[in-house]
Amino acid sequence: MIQAETKFRVRYAETDQMGYVYYGRYAEYFEVGRVEAMRLLGFSYKDVEDKGILMPVIELNIVYKKPAFYDDEITLITKLQEMPSGYRIKFEYETKNAKNELLNTGTVSLVFIDKKSNKMVKVPDWFQQGLLPFFKANP
Amino acid sequence: MIQAETKFRVRYAETDQMGYVYYGRYAEYFEVGRVEAMRLLGFSYKDVEDKGILMPVIELNIVYKKPAFYDDEITLITKLQEMPSGYRIKFEYETKNAKNELLNTGTVSLVFIDKKSNKMVKVPDWFQQGLLPFFKANP
Amino acid sequence: MIQAETKFRVRYAETDQMGYVYYGRYAEYFEVGRVEAMRLLGFSYKDVEDKGILMPVIELNIVYKKPAFYDDEITLITKLQEMPSGYRIKFEYETKNAKNELLNTGTVSLVFIDKKSNKMVKVPDWFQQGLLPFFKANP
Amino acid sequence: MIQAETKFRVRYAETDQMGYVYYGRYAEYFEVGRVEAMRLLGFSYKDVEDKGILMPVIELNIVYKKPAFYDDEITLITKLQEMPSGYRIKFEYETKNAKNELLNTGTVSLVFIDKKSNKMVKVPDWFQQGLLPFFKANP
Repeated sequence: MIQAETKFRVRYAETDQMGYVYYGRYAEYFEVGRVEAMRLLGFSYKDVEDKGILMPVIELNIVYKKPAFYDDEITLITKLQEMPSGYRIKFEYETKNAKNELLNTGTVSLVFIDKKSNKMVKVPDWFQQGLLPFFKANP
Repeated sequence: MIQAETKFRVRYAETDQMGYVYYGRYAEYFEVGRVEAMRLLGFSYKDVEDKGILMPVIELNIVYKKPAFYDDEITLITKLQEMPSGYRIKFEYETKNAKNELLNTGTVSLVFIDKKSNKMVKVPDWFQQGLLPFFKANP
Repeated sequence: MIQAETKFRVRYAETDQMGYVYYGRYAEYFEVGRVEAMRLLGFSYKDVEDKGILMPVIELNIVYKKPAFYDDEITLITKLQEMPSGYRIKFEYETKNAKNELLNTGTVSLVFIDKKSNKMVKVPDWFQQGLLPFFKANP
Repeated sequence: MIQAETKFRVRYAETDQMGYVYYGRYAEYFEVGRVEAMRLLGFSYKDVEDKGILMPVIELNIVYKKPAFYDDEITLITKLQEMPSGYRIKFEYETKNAKNELLNTGTVSLVFIDKKSNKMVKVPDWFQQGLLPFFKANP
């Protein structure tokens, strides 16, 4: 399993008139979380696209337990439980506030698209090779 | 069952560098869909809040099948399959493009919060009464 | 002078915890306004990009007078006072609510970029030709 | 003069199909910049609102020179050149990328609103007192 933590503050723009972080903004947070998780593994998502692979999201699930508020310090935990082997990669998320209260949990599944052919492809070898040491080291 | 259709165009701001509508933006579209669905039923969500009830989202699920692109004319179908009777209300969604291709499906569940007490409450009577004729008329 | 009117409703996502439409969201509204203005003239901005021209914004100014609120029906007036002749095109805006109160005024200037060379170019002939009848008819 | 620097990375959500950071997103960046500038001065904007003062934006100006791209490390410089003495406070901005290229410059003016009366008020004493040492120390 691979796990990464990202910390950031809620922006005013991200709140709505309830005073909560707007429920759709977590998609943006989750994106930041997986990009930072990938960076820890030695990948920049920018490089992935430069290598001709797009990774659009194919499924998003969020269960909201508590709201986040303006200026809250958020900790986002991003997990990759399984080495991706087929067409998909699935990230799991936990969002917490500064009191360590669980705000929500979520999952995001993405696919690999070859930019030229615009077709879905299996997880590239170089991608899998990059993850391998982490899955070996953390059995 | 109650069903509403909302049509709108994809804004440039809603695209990302893949040229797709950003996956998190559908949360915003779904919000527009349920607000318009409720307006058809004679409710404005604004009135709901003015009556002291907040309706935060408690669960969001989206399965993405095809991307939407800039300037696409989107049709969003919002369904309320069941009369809400407890603490939750669940909307179902289908997003289609102008070629009638299914772009994604989703569900959003919301709860009712009393503004003063900040506690979850059951679906208010006046809310249920408002929906009743539609469920009777469309068995 | 060319003038177009666009009407839309404020989305919940667009509010912030003050209960106002977030000040940055007007950039998005203005984009919708000029796209709809161009569509009236027989241009889709999508076509402009398909013809190899990008139109990034080079200057944005907004003076805010009154806030817009959730569910407000907004009327956005977009004006093109002058036929663009050089490297820039400048749109002027007025945002009003349903009571016809002026919410803000703004201007957005854009340039023409050739996609291939990534260089600034003068307003394309076909673009100017498209505008000509409107400036003639409305002197 | 008071000056603060904020660093952050461009999120994927912030790009548009040109591959640029969407022009309206800088309003959000500028908000982060002034909040962080105020935090350096010992104010949290959250506290300002808790003290019954809202600070809506009354004017926004941005001149764009170069685009920012996905994953760019942005440095945002926020300046307060003058001690606010009347009804307004004006922040100045410079946005730079990792190559120290100037991406854009901007200004944001805000007013002070008393939450209860919903009227504009002069800069509160406690606000001015908070800034005083910085203006003395940096003449």
